[in-house]
Amino acid sequence: MADINAVGAQFINYYYQTFDASRTQLGPLYRPTSMLSFEGNQTLGDAAIVEKLSGLPLDGLVHKVATQDVQPIDNGLLITVTGQLLAGGETNPQFFTQTFHLKPEGGSYYVQNDIFRLVYGL
Amino acid sequence: MADINAVGAQFINYYYQTFDASRTQLGPLYRPTSMLSFEGNQTLGDAAIVEKLSGLPLDGLVHKVATQDVQPIDNGLLITVTGQLLAGGETNPQFFTQTFHLKPEGGSYYVQNDIFRLVYGL
Repeated sequence: MADINAVGAQFINYYYQTFDASRTQLGPLYRPTSMLSFEGNQTLGDAAIVEKLSGLPLDGLVHKVATQDVQPIDNGLLITVTGQLLAGGETNPQFFTQTFHLKPEGGSYYVQNDIFRLVYGL
Repeated sequence: MADINAVGAQFINYYYQTFDASRTQLGPLYRPTSMLSFEGNQTLGDAAIVEKLSGLPLDGLVHKVATQDVQPIDNGLLITVTGQLLAGGETNPQFFTQTFHLKPEGGSYYVQNDIFRLVYGL
């Protein structure tokens, strides 16, 4: 098995780079069975997830990752990220946490589970 | 299948109540295969995890859960919590996020994966 920390770091880097540059390009990371919980709202399936993410009023957003933890889970990966979000034109960052469950497929991974939360009170 | 949100809520309530009252009692929730990442430090197995948690200088700690999200994952549950920690005698809360992967066993669940992080910069 490849080093899961390296795989996790590569995924996280690619995910947020793509999210911040062009959210519509995230589609290939999800499948029809994928689940997203975004601030408590649930969305099922790659098409609906990309529509949801693309519709968020987050132009010019920058994710800055502070911590990332990776654990093996069955034959996939469990990843939890914490970090800061800086919206375009804003100077005060918001804090967030995001958890991914990646499942293997054809030598790569897709996102089966995705849970995103802002951390308030900061 | 039981309502996963109800199962998740019951687990979260039990977990933090037990953690805050008597961390040594958390052992039965873990198994020899269980993994904990606590602030980036990894621990494997129920005995080592309970030793790790019991040794933390956290007397009088209170967890206050702000959000909880539950998704099905294979035949188990994926849970992400955000909330505040108030250490004994302290007045300033710290923010945390914790992710659990629960696996079913004999009509109940145990913790296979556990990732804990403080959220700093607050």
